Amino acid sequence: MTLTDPLHALIEQLQQLPGIGPKSAQRLAYFFLSLPADKVHQFAQVLEDTRERVRYCSQCFTICFDERCGVCTSESRNQSTICIVADPRTVYAMERIGEYNGVYHVLGGLISPIDGIHPELLRIQELMDRIRAATVTELILAINPTVEGDATVLYLQHILKHFPIRITRLAYGLPMGADIDYADDLTLLKAFQGRTRVEE
Amino acid sequence: MTLTDPLHALIEQLQQLPGIGPKSAQRLAYFFLSLPADKVHQFAQVLEDTRERVRYCSQCFTICFDERCGVCTSESRNQSTICIVADPRTVYAMERIGEYNGVYHVLGGLISPIDGIHPELLRIQELMDRIRAATVTELILAINPTVEGDATVLYLQHILKHFPIRITRLAYGLPMGADIDYADDLTLLKAFQGRTRVEE
Repeated sequence: MTLTDPLHALIEQLQQLPGIGPKSAQRLAYFFLSLPADKVHQFAQVLEDTRERVRYCSQCFTICFDERCGVCTSESRNQSTICIVADPRTVYAMERIGEYNGVYHVLGGLISPIDGIHPELLRIQELMDRIRAATVTELILAINPTVEGDATVLYLQHILKHFPIRITRLAYGLPMGADIDYADDLTLLKAFQGRTRVEE
Repeated sequence: MTLTDPLHALIEQLQQLPGIGPKSAQRLAYFFLSLPADKVHQFAQVLEDTRERVRYCSQCFTICFDERCGVCTSESRNQSTICIVADPRTVYAMERIGEYNGVYHVLGGLISPIDGIHPELLRIQELMDRIRAATVTELILAINPTVEGDATVLYLQHILKHFPIRITRLAYGLPMGADIDYADDLTLLKAFQGRTRVEE
């Protein structure tokens, strides 16, 4: 196909993005070509700038653009509650709900022996250092209910059992607006096991 | 949300792309931040380069990177057959099947009085010039079966009726692998009306 060969480089780049298949990549490529050149320049600039400025918070290891992130440096956040997450995306999701007032700790992954991810590859030592250095009263595990997530939760429970800390995990059950008849069995099981008392 | 504010510029840029909603934009942003900086630079570079180099073929008006496109300048392509398309994406799709050996003519849209797109805004005059300047034996209309597409086809049929040119349109019917029971009524109607004789 001699016609659009130079387009291929762009389409191939776009196809490497997560969730972008050949058709979407093609649509995006034509979209970019239809934009004014300065818009495309601006897009490319924002992309590169953001990537170049990104670093990790020295306390909680989430993505930030300074030595420490906005949550860790905020005086209004409760430093004695730490929400433990696998990656910075969960920090973003938790911040979106606007309800949580503690700080975070990003593990950088979940324990998965099959993939060669052992506890020492995660930022668990750094978590222990934080717990020893400051008064921590609650650890909230915002970790997916997968095999790797459960293994990580078990491991954390084990190494933290001698600390006087309340360890909690996000509730799992039916998503809001869901129809019970269409819920998958595992979700329904979790919803049943985690049933809560109806308050008067 | 002070935490990820600088990320917002990138997420907002990504959300403006077609087919990319808030969740996909967020996923893409974190993906870009997880890539090595030189990969992101390369991506931005390909994007800008491709956009800056793009131009339109002076004969068929498809996207190309020279004065004339690879199809128009190819000696092996049959210049007496012209496939008429609304935009360059259809050229790309037609080239992918590897069966068509003629050339193209990109109209740059379809007739749509409601949107203020009248025939004179499309490259129909340029098409007439091409037909007058060279021997054209067949025009293949690769135009979507929409209200706008049908209006454009009717208009072309009308202004071309005095030329000794065979005008054809792509066949519409059941897509390959489709189940007749699940086809929508219009597709089934088209398939029925366009039924072909079974060859022995």
